[in-house]
Amino acid sequence: MNIITKSNLLKLQCNFIKQGLVSFHGTSQKSAIEIKVDYKMKNKEGMIENKSEMISKEDETVQKTFHGLIKGERSSLAKSITMCESVHPKKKAQAQVLLAEVLEYNKKKGRKRNAKSNALPMTKHASLKHGTFRIGLSGPPGAGKSTFIEAFGKFLTERKHKVAVLAVDPSSSTTGGSLLGDKTRMPELSVDANAYIRPSPSSGTLGGVTRSTNEAIVLCEGAGYDTILVETVGVGQSEFAVADMVDLFVLILPPAGGDELQGIKKGIVEVADLIVINKSDGDLVAAARRIQMEYISALKFIRRRSKVWKPKVRRISSKTKEGIEDLWEKMKEYRNLSLESGELETKRMNQQKIWMWSHIKHEIIDIFKNHSHVKDKVDTLEKEVSLGNITPGYAADTLLSLFKSKKL
Amino acid sequence: MNIITKSNLLKLQCNFIKQGLVSFHGTSQKSAIEIKVDYKMKNKEGMIENKSEMISKEDETVQKTFHGLIKGERSSLAKSITMCESVHPKKKAQAQVLLAEVLEYNKKKGRKRNAKSNALPMTKHASLKHGTFRIGLSGPPGAGKSTFIEAFGKFLTERKHKVAVLAVDPSSSTTGGSLLGDKTRMPELSVDANAYIRPSPSSGTLGGVTRSTNEAIVLCEGAGYDTILVETVGVGQSEFAVADMVDLFVLILPPAGGDELQGIKKGIVEVADLIVINKSDGDLVAAARRIQMEYISALKFIRRRSKVWKPKVRRISSKTKEGIEDLWEKMKEYRNLSLESGELETKRMNQQKIWMWSHIKHEIIDIFKNHSHVKDKVDTLEKEVSLGNITPGYAADTLLSLFKSKKL
Repeated sequence: MNIITKSNLLKLQCNFIKQGLVSFHGTSQKSAIEIKVDYKMKNKEGMIENKSEMISKEDETVQKTFHGLIKGERSSLAKSITMCESVHPKKKAQAQVLLAEVLEYNKKKGRKRNAKSNALPMTKHASLKHGTFRIGLSGPPGAGKSTFIEAFGKFLTERKHKVAVLAVDPSSSTTGGSLLGDKTRMPELSVDANAYIRPSPSSGTLGGVTRSTNEAIVLCEGAGYDTILVETVGVGQSEFAVADMVDLFVLILPPAGGDELQGIKKGIVEVADLIVINKSDGDLVAAARRIQMEYISALKFIRRRSKVWKPKVRRISSKTKEGIEDLWEKMKEYRNLSLESGELETKRMNQQKIWMWSHIKHEIIDIFKNHSHVKDKVDTLEKEVSLGNITPGYAADTLLSLFKSKKL
Repeated sequence: MNIITKSNLLKLQCNFIKQGLVSFHGTSQKSAIEIKVDYKMKNKEGMIENKSEMISKEDETVQKTFHGLIKGERSSLAKSITMCESVHPKKKAQAQVLLAEVLEYNKKKGRKRNAKSNALPMTKHASLKHGTFRIGLSGPPGAGKSTFIEAFGKFLTERKHKVAVLAVDPSSSTTGGSLLGDKTRMPELSVDANAYIRPSPSSGTLGGVTRSTNEAIVLCEGAGYDTILVETVGVGQSEFAVADMVDLFVLILPPAGGDELQGIKKGIVEVADLIVINKSDGDLVAAARRIQMEYISALKFIRRRSKVWKPKVRRISSKTKEGIEDLWEKMKEYRNLSLESGELETKRMNQQKIWMWSHIKHEIIDIFKNHSHVKDKVDTLEKEVSLGNITPGYAADTLLSLFKSKKL
């Protein structure tokens, strides 16, 4: 899909002010990008020197990582995800060039798979037919997410799927690593040759974590993983962020009623495509059945987000594995319905746009708050506004005018 | 509350780029503000002349409107709200100066009322004790909102309350005026000397409409209205906007189940402090009872937003007036509990800050999108992102760098 031809060649100049030392000069033609990086480093004499480099797909690290990645080498995959998480100008630039390469590779692979298959005529969304399946998983503490992922992941790898597990957990940056980073909670899956478990980046805001998770999805797909499980802990808005990066969003709940249930986010039931009541085994079967009924009735009050799919509530046991096959059938049914209706393609396209704007909105408020003129006044004005001395509109106008009055 | 002293006198220069012709030079000391307005107008010979004026509280229009307003004159109230809705530079400046005056007046009035009352020691939040009550009302079409407001408004004016009804309806700007602008839907209340009904501004985006509604609340309070009803139609995000500008948010529903109910927003049940099942009369009592039970059970799944208040579900009839007195008692109970716990004061203070940032976020994305360098590239990049040729992060970086690279 050559949407960029020579005639509309993009010449992009980028300065990442936050790092102070970086400037990007990108030339984007087709999906190949070149990025100019300026940074400072110490030379042999210990003096700080200005360095300037051009990163393109010919870059040695990019080349090596890319070829390792598409061969499915775990070390290359791990290295490339680390690159995306890096704050070093050069590594960031390499990550972007690599991502562009992988995106192009994934597209070619999709087209090839479709050419081989004669099942469907080449429709607009056919490229997804043999593509990957991105599944989001969320749930409150105590829902048994880890044991579910272990059981579900094994179920998939036994059926010849390659499964990647990514985690979004912005809290791990404050606690310095969380349970999610702990592979021992999924002992079988973590040693499975057909599974790749990546803990959440150990630093960064929700914005940063979601960005590298979005990029890790692309990289895992490039490395041949066909089922991507994106897991979240119930912190901040991470569940909603994950719902916006997957094809199917699953809410996992313990067999406990609304009154007993702590830590479930407002509105999260409304973005779930599937609700799974876990631990439906032994003494808990009756409770799980009751909770299933409660959620089926609660879903009646929720507007459907899809024209072809009505959210379902399923009971499973990660221990006895009961219900897991049925759940997978439901997931495939969802995928087929949303693929055939074109909803899946539209969803993925919109998600990309949502993320672009989300990154911009996230960054631009920082740019605003750090603007020299705004920074001087924002606290005073915010205080005056909250005390009711001036209106929010007047304070906003004043700050916006300060922002617009001077160069950044 | 003199939080601004001479030593931290604010000198604010504001340029509203959108209008192109305006520039504000404000000096804010205490809550008095002066705004310099530059605008163009035709002179007698039909030539366009540059005008420059300083608007302060001595401005004749501001003076006249202010004194009329605090006497409770309806024409002055109407005129001042129109000023807030105006896009003319001079009128906008006058509105801001007037609002600052009214804010100060409202504060003084609050302090006076409290000095007279010996009921409570002068606590931090005592200024709200005899203050106004801001109630948000929302509901899907068919809930009988108009008849409810008519019945509830009359109930209040009969009990010596002065009631203002404001509407937030961004759709009226596209349809050229909506039902909400139609006073005939509240025939009794609209001729009641103790009620003031203001239709939604007939133009503007949600951002603009919410801003002038926020300002209209302040003005109505200045004019002596103690109960402000802010009504919304179920369009876009207006319900959530209204929930953020009131003390108490009420969701009005018809006696119809979740399956039958159209037009109820995702998440709206979760921000309601009170749910009112309307039309609980005649044949519909049984249905209303059933719906009441359904919502009571649905509320179990929703996290409480207040430490002192658990959302309640009430049945009423706007026709027979049954349940309205009980509803008002519940509302007062809510107000007292949130006042005593300090939640009300915190809520109002936070709402002001929310609105300041909401205006900024709303405007800044416009500034971003209209930035000459961004404008040239945003469509191309958005398309490339949605087609999966580049990552959302790379596109965002590129656009942000373009934005930062040149003066606005």
